Amino acid sequence: VIDIAIPIFDGFTALEAIGPYEVLSRVPGAGVRFLAAEPGPKRSDMGMVGVTADFALSDLEDPEVIVIPGGLGITEMIADPLVLAWLRRAHDTTFWTAAVSTGTLLLAAAGVAERSGPASRPNQLANCTRGERNRLTRRHGMDRGKVLTAAGAATGIEMALRLAAALAGEKTARAIQDAIGYNPERTPAIQDAIGYDPERADAAAVRQGRPKLGAGRA
Amino acid sequence: VIDIAIPIFDGFTALEAIGPYEVLSRVPGAGVRFLAAEPGPKRSDMGMVGVTADFALSDLEDPEVIVIPGGLGITEMIADPLVLAWLRRAHDTTFWTAAVSTGTLLLAAAGVAERSGPASRPNQLANCTRGERNRLTRRHGMDRGKVLTAAGAATGIEMALRLAAALAGEKTARAIQDAIGYNPERTPAIQDAIGYDPERADAAAVRQGRPKLGAGRA
Repeated sequence: VIDIAIPIFDGFTALEAIGPYEVLSRVPGAGVRFLAAEPGPKRSDMGMVGVTADFALSDLEDPEVIVIPGGLGITEMIADPLVLAWLRRAHDTTFWTAAVSTGTLLLAAAGVAERSGPASRPNQLANCTRGERNRLTRRHGMDRGKVLTAAGAATGIEMALRLAAALAGEKTARAIQDAIGYNPERTPAIQDAIGYDPERADAAAVRQGRPKLGAGRA
Repeated sequence: VIDIAIPIFDGFTALEAIGPYEVLSRVPGAGVRFLAAEPGPKRSDMGMVGVTADFALSDLEDPEVIVIPGGLGITEMIADPLVLAWLRRAHDTTFWTAAVSTGTLLLAAAGVAERSGPASRPNQLANCTRGERNRLTRRHGMDRGKVLTAAGAATGIEMALRLAAALAGEKTARAIQDAIGYNPERTPAIQDAIGYDPERADAAAVRQGRPKLGAGRA
């Protein structure tokens, strides 16, 4: 099993956890666990849904992949020494440590972001035993270059697809992309439907639709 | 408040509920509620996460918008007379009734899909009182053409952006799209990264990455 940890907390952005989950849970051999300092239901920063953290952080000290969602509640995570200690220790042995939007603030607070460089990972890790993956890690010098970040909620899906390609190969990642219907071919239709034009991004409108911190770009 | 109902169930596809939630919860004045025949935590069809249904179906008999996610568990929903009765009754007064992937099977089972046609809704409903929305409904003959469906998990986000545009105007929908980072401009990068080419879709690979029913195209 490839252990994948998604730490959540009250005030997390739901899509930033569930988007990557939907991709990574489909990677052959992957086991995704939602963790929290205190297990139990955590409310999203929009306040209208709860997602359950089945495990405590201490239940999984050595995940191979970490994906940290953002959200208004990240400020409390940043101030929690136990969370920071868990992240620092876990990061030491991950293949990838990833964060979406303001989740990157937690990486920075833990000093994890500083120890990163451009990603360079061997593919097909899913077909290895954990021992083989550990050997690959050493051979490829994976103590560097394993931090991934994504700017916004939906881009967490794209980041997770990159992770899936790295873990299980591009063919599987393409299959997952198709399975979850993340099909860029359909995008122009919705752009037309809602009149979206990235070139004419309206800063005021953006602020109007964005919670103060939850969906901000980190 | 615009009442938006997202019914969930054991075996639902998490992204098909949370994607639309992330968009619709940002519509000004919208209140999104996760409902189930029995309130409580519901496990996703990939089995590794639970999302809480805070309310019973009977707590919200007259939502203005319904979004039904798909997933392996939809088969049990289809066989539940109480669920079908709730959906038929609720659909009578919705502005939109929407479903993602196999969620459309529930629409069909309830006979709801048959009563639909091309969508044609007035915009800016978010700025009306419920009484005004009801009048608009009658004026625009909204007993027809209010069923929306999306093929796959991630396309539920696009569908919800259409709904947001209809509920609150295109400017707000654009702001939400930017807030959640659903930016089609970035898509080519991930396509390149994982070698995705929709023209060369590999049917075998697609089946490999797709659970039997959960992420199927309805």
